[in-house]
Amino acid sequence: MNYIELYDTTLRDGAQTEGISFSVHDKMRIAQKLDEIGIRYIEGGWPGVNPKDVAFFKRIREYDLKNAKIAAFGSTRRADTKSSQDKVLQGLLASEAEVITIFGKTWDLHVHEVLKTSSDENLRMIEDSLRFLRSKGRFVIFDAEHFFDGFKDNKEYAVKCLLAAQQGGAERIVLCDTNGGTLTSQVFDAVEEVVKVIRVPVGIHMHNDSEMAVANSVAAVQAGASHIQGTINGYGERCGNANLISIIANLKLKMGVDCITDIALKDLTELSHFVAEISNMKQEDNQPFVGRRAFAHKAGVHINAILKNSRSYEHIDPDRVGNRRRLIVSEHSGKSGIAKKAEEMNLGLDPAKADGQKILKTLQKLEHEGYHFESAEASLELFMRRAMHEFRDFFKLVDFRVIIEKKEKHSMTSEAVIKIKVGKTMEHTASTGDGPVNALDSALRKALKDFYPALSEMHLSDFKVRVLDEKAGTAAKVRVLVQSQDKNESWWTIGVSENIIEASWIALVDSVEYKLLKGSGKKK
Amino acid sequence: MNYIELYDTTLRDGAQTEGISFSVHDKMRIAQKLDEIGIRYIEGGWPGVNPKDVAFFKRIREYDLKNAKIAAFGSTRRADTKSSQDKVLQGLLASEAEVITIFGKTWDLHVHEVLKTSSDENLRMIEDSLRFLRSKGRFVIFDAEHFFDGFKDNKEYAVKCLLAAQQGGAERIVLCDTNGGTLTSQVFDAVEEVVKVIRVPVGIHMHNDSEMAVANSVAAVQAGASHIQGTINGYGERCGNANLISIIANLKLKMGVDCITDIALKDLTELSHFVAEISNMKQEDNQPFVGRRAFAHKAGVHINAILKNSRSYEHIDPDRVGNRRRLIVSEHSGKSGIAKKAEEMNLGLDPAKADGQKILKTLQKLEHEGYHFESAEASLELFMRRAMHEFRDFFKLVDFRVIIEKKEKHSMTSEAVIKIKVGKTMEHTASTGDGPVNALDSALRKALKDFYPALSEMHLSDFKVRVLDEKAGTAAKVRVLVQSQDKNESWWTIGVSENIIEASWIALVDSVEYKLLKGSGKKK
Repeated sequence: MNYIELYDTTLRDGAQTEGISFSVHDKMRIAQKLDEIGIRYIEGGWPGVNPKDVAFFKRIREYDLKNAKIAAFGSTRRADTKSSQDKVLQGLLASEAEVITIFGKTWDLHVHEVLKTSSDENLRMIEDSLRFLRSKGRFVIFDAEHFFDGFKDNKEYAVKCLLAAQQGGAERIVLCDTNGGTLTSQVFDAVEEVVKVIRVPVGIHMHNDSEMAVANSVAAVQAGASHIQGTINGYGERCGNANLISIIANLKLKMGVDCITDIALKDLTELSHFVAEISNMKQEDNQPFVGRRAFAHKAGVHINAILKNSRSYEHIDPDRVGNRRRLIVSEHSGKSGIAKKAEEMNLGLDPAKADGQKILKTLQKLEHEGYHFESAEASLELFMRRAMHEFRDFFKLVDFRVIIEKKEKHSMTSEAVIKIKVGKTMEHTASTGDGPVNALDSALRKALKDFYPALSEMHLSDFKVRVLDEKAGTAAKVRVLVQSQDKNESWWTIGVSENIIEASWIALVDSVEYKLLKGSGKKK
Repeated sequence: MNYIELYDTTLRDGAQTEGISFSVHDKMRIAQKLDEIGIRYIEGGWPGVNPKDVAFFKRIREYDLKNAKIAAFGSTRRADTKSSQDKVLQGLLASEAEVITIFGKTWDLHVHEVLKTSSDENLRMIEDSLRFLRSKGRFVIFDAEHFFDGFKDNKEYAVKCLLAAQQGGAERIVLCDTNGGTLTSQVFDAVEEVVKVIRVPVGIHMHNDSEMAVANSVAAVQAGASHIQGTINGYGERCGNANLISIIANLKLKMGVDCITDIALKDLTELSHFVAEISNMKQEDNQPFVGRRAFAHKAGVHINAILKNSRSYEHIDPDRVGNRRRLIVSEHSGKSGIAKKAEEMNLGLDPAKADGQKILKTLQKLEHEGYHFESAEASLELFMRRAMHEFRDFFKLVDFRVIIEKKEKHSMTSEAVIKIKVGKTMEHTASTGDGPVNALDSALRKALKDFYPALSEMHLSDFKVRVLDEKAGTAAKVRVLVQSQDKNESWWTIGVSENIIEASWIALVDSVEYKLLKGSGKKK
């Protein structure tokens, strides 16, 4: 178990995710990043099917990749035809990809009911197609589609398909759990049997329908597989593919298996964010190893212990994968957490002193009212600095007015009028918007933009509304969370009120103040 | 492997999730749902630490649960004290919970560096605490914190801790992977060893930091564990706990293990949605078994095959867990459900006829825009009746205006001015409120009250706001759900718009119209 080959299919299987649609340019950027981190094979697409993929294979040839080889994906030839005349195989060759991966059926249910051909012809399709591609000088990989279902239903035939692939010259034979339904123990047993009868390196390709794709991939390695296919962040159709991010971290840090370098491992968190960003997917906060919350500690007991010995509540050192520890302040965390937080901000809050006590009390009161600072660290920092007189507001609200109007047969309009003071200068302006909060947001930025040009660097990236105590109906308190970002970081702010406009306003003001605080040099 | 006990800790460990903050009322609703589905133990909270939890234990005693027993969670006594004088243990007893679960250290690193006590005293703390609680007539469960880390580091001591728990009278001994770092093979091996030396039933409590919590829980069962702890949707600190939803589905459908009934299994999708909704978390579309995309098939090869034989691309029948197949190309996926709905309303909609087709198209368009009629059947009924000219609106909006004003040093005010027409009579009135939606709600009722006195019988009982497409920031679309009730029933209505006031208005109007429709005798 010295070295495991990684095969990334984010650009092909990952692109099947509902909601993901890569441009050729997106694909180029991801491929280069995957190459940098040391992925061995990058599956770029199915060149016969998608014109975008044809363009990708053409453009990627111009790049001098350091580590990776590009693979083109397709299927075996059709039944009762010749490989040399098959359109799919011709498309694969035309891509000029060095590596060609083709999938074939290994479950006889599929052979008979979907392909509607004979078991023997299917074996010939596998063997012929591979031999043909190999004769053209390509490195060929066989993806054994539905292998585990076939192995359960008709083991003899499933293994025959693998042997046909070997006979045809496959350099890797990859066992696919196409429906994602196989349990870890079944994966282990099947791989163990296969590696006994197959001479070429065996690979694994898992889907997450049983929420086991990562465990199954790791178990396959323990059973003798030496090649793993997966996608960054587990993107893929239905419940996704095996998440290469978690697989890499587990292999490297838990099993001492070589697959990328230690230095590249430190880029794992960044890689995950990068691919999420390009895919326009939100990176899940709870994503193992690389998520924002993966090393966040909330319970008072935990924080106490972490401060004594980080191993006590962390399975790995977050730094190894480029992530970091976060201590979350909340009603669960108690004093030590809050003091620690203040320390991080260089505020020197002493919870034993009267001032510190007062701040903690106010914090608890606010949390009781529905504030939830753990999700809004920027607001927490502003609160602490304000409480300790470490911070002066960058502007002062004089007044605002928001008017929402609906006239028969016209669509609704929202307009905000705002008056603020920066130093001694008064600014009075107005804006419309898609709804009252958007109008208010626009008016505030408009009023501030001449005083603080840096605000043009930030934008709002996420917005959440939660009704607290929903039973109070339309008079219920509302908690608004706003996420903002500039080119370097993102931050969350919070507002709570019975009036949703007021709650939004509080969060908006904090988001702007935090940006200005960062720019003022007060904050490192 | 006949029957596996399920132990849900959504209300305790799940509540540690950053972003989740349950009210006592939320906890009550979730507990009742868990009971209905047949969960054996429901861990309600840590009564010594959190006042909200104390209130929960008090209120839940008034309910006659059908299947579940309520468990209170806490720790062993402190070092060098007496159990009978320990505050945590007293808090647990005071909760009057039938089941008490306490955690204790089993990793000597924790004993020495975090507790700062001796190995022997830790053993006494475990044994004493359990014996004490049991002597008070409680059913006691021991959570062996960090068991797998302890087992790796100092196996002898880790097992000694379990034996101390057994000696103290623990009825279940639960092996916890507190840091979530253990691989499936390690879990299997450790559980297999433990069940050989421990007489009482062994349980498992997994965290998802290695993205293996579900696989690890299932492997533990295969190694001899008979009790599983987890949370709905895998909520929990950091990367979450083991996801009970996936565990239940795997046990029932892949391993034939009994844990809930087949009928309850069909409620799994609904349960997952329900808990996500109350937690104000988005249910992930790609969540295994229950997510919107879990059985979604894209155009081409897959759909073709699915139509030939659903087993070909589905690991289980989605109906078994209350989910459904979605063919993404199909324009008519919701058709049969909608036709069925119309049948329930005695509307005689024929989806084969032109009218029916048109209505279905409009419905699909609305759903695409973010309407979600499954959660708002009153709005669905109004929509269908309007579309089929089975219904005339009870009033007509002429116009409204909402003004929200904030002046320096004054609190924010909201005022709504509204003009409506009932028949030929125009009504023009105004109202203030706690926020713009409340003001609008009040003004609408005020305008209608003389025409429709029945409205005084209804009131709004719940109000939810969800930001759709959160990435669009303050310009994002918002979905508002309003629940209303009178003395006989409650109903949900919905509105979607980029303007939160408009979305609320749409839902408010429907809530009133539905009430009036009921009173008009048109609806049985």
